[in-house]
Amino acid sequence: MKRVNGFRSVILTLFALATLAASAATAQETKAVKTEAEAPLHLGIVLYPGFEPLDVFGPLEMFMNVGSERLRVHMIAEKAGLVPSSTGGYASSIAPKVEATVSLADAPPLDIIMVPGGFGTLQQLQNQTLLAWLRERAPQARFTTSVCSGSAILAKAGLLDGKKATSNKQLFSYLAANGPSTDWQKSARWVEDGAIITSSGVSAGMDMALAVIAKLFGMETAEQIAAATEYAWHRDADEDPFTQYLDHGLRGLSTSGDRQGQ
Amino acid sequence: MKRVNGFRSVILTLFALATLAASAATAQETKAVKTEAEAPLHLGIVLYPGFEPLDVFGPLEMFMNVGSERLRVHMIAEKAGLVPSSTGGYASSIAPKVEATVSLADAPPLDIIMVPGGFGTLQQLQNQTLLAWLRERAPQARFTTSVCSGSAILAKAGLLDGKKATSNKQLFSYLAANGPSTDWQKSARWVEDGAIITSSGVSAGMDMALAVIAKLFGMETAEQIAAATEYAWHRDADEDPFTQYLDHGLRGLSTSGDRQGQ
Repeated sequence: MKRVNGFRSVILTLFALATLAASAATAQETKAVKTEAEAPLHLGIVLYPGFEPLDVFGPLEMFMNVGSERLRVHMIAEKAGLVPSSTGGYASSIAPKVEATVSLADAPPLDIIMVPGGFGTLQQLQNQTLLAWLRERAPQARFTTSVCSGSAILAKAGLLDGKKATSNKQLFSYLAANGPSTDWQKSARWVEDGAIITSSGVSAGMDMALAVIAKLFGMETAEQIAAATEYAWHRDADEDPFTQYLDHGLRGLSTSGDRQGQ
Repeated sequence: MKRVNGFRSVILTLFALATLAASAATAQETKAVKTEAEAPLHLGIVLYPGFEPLDVFGPLEMFMNVGSERLRVHMIAEKAGLVPSSTGGYASSIAPKVEATVSLADAPPLDIIMVPGGFGTLQQLQNQTLLAWLRERAPQARFTTSVCSGSAILAKAGLLDGKKATSNKQLFSYLAANGPSTDWQKSARWVEDGAIITSSGVSAGMDMALAVIAKLFGMETAEQIAAATEYAWHRDADEDPFTQYLDHGLRGLSTSGDRQGQ
């Protein structure tokens, strides 16, 4: 109650008050779930040149709505500074850029790590600094997560050895080759195996993020965030509407000549 | 064919080739729809402090996947530079920042304008520079669009006078008050009225973006982008799964005292 009244005295508008009222309601509910009472959890989102925008900002939207008093989000890259996104054939010079505020080396202890996918995944598979960082940091985190082709990076770091995992559907076999001893799930919206949670392509990251929020902060918080963001949460990890596109991107390559006449 | 072969000689990896093969297939299909053959269309996304991350990056993901040869995306703000996002009670000092590469004044001619929502909407309702810019630029654009509370800004600029429009569900009445002569649609995923297209809250922007892509570049392109991003596109503009939360954010305010005991 005290916290709610404190906020009220500072924020003067109806819009702000409505937002905070919703926050306060979820804060109350959380205490039963999150036992560390006052200390926020820390989420590190790893950015790299050519990350897929929605891989990052879909989950970020969900996670940030938990509220900074319960979950702090850190945008992390090999070096702090602007990181160009990429998709749809964009060259990095014109792709929208996002600020990483902290380097891998300087990142604080993290409760959740999230590795997005995107066109730049390919380069990161060879980035020994990132792979070593993941090997060091993942065992210290409660959850290490990936979106889309990000699971290929986790696999390359050895974090998926002997684990169940999934990845982007359209390039599934190509990405899965980075984890020869991983039990790859061809049909899954996301896959949880202990502390490792991997999601399917791009949009699936939002569904996974809400599932992680439900685990850490309670189902009611996850449901409230889905409602507030007007997101039709796909709650069933095992139901994958995009299995039909399995390796479609790879098949598209070999048949692209034929397609010209369509 | 020539363009596809040109790309192939530059990009050496299978991953890159698969992406480009998909691009090439949609490029072929587009020519029937988009008659301006070679010149790309230009989309301007307006950033302001406190914009909602998914309002921007959900649609951006869809639009960027059209490919830069057909659609250029410009991140625009009152002044070029880093713009802090906001959500979930984040103070702007720790909210992830995104780079606006061009100022309102220097923005190129735009075929599509997109105004996101977010906590910062409230300030922008008083931003005469932005409102004047919208009044000047919207009549020159093929489509002026908004996501979430962004429609309140369009309304304040007078662009929704006598038009049908929608907005964020949870704060609907509060936002709608900015357009007293607007025919506000309480139940709609998005609303198209001539050159003005407004979407419901946050996630609805992705559905609207795909609808705009279908109009400009053909349904097959929109379907391919939804599949590539593994996004379960909500195709029906009139079906709104979140009408049940109408003004819920406002009611939450008045009943927050009662909620403490839950």
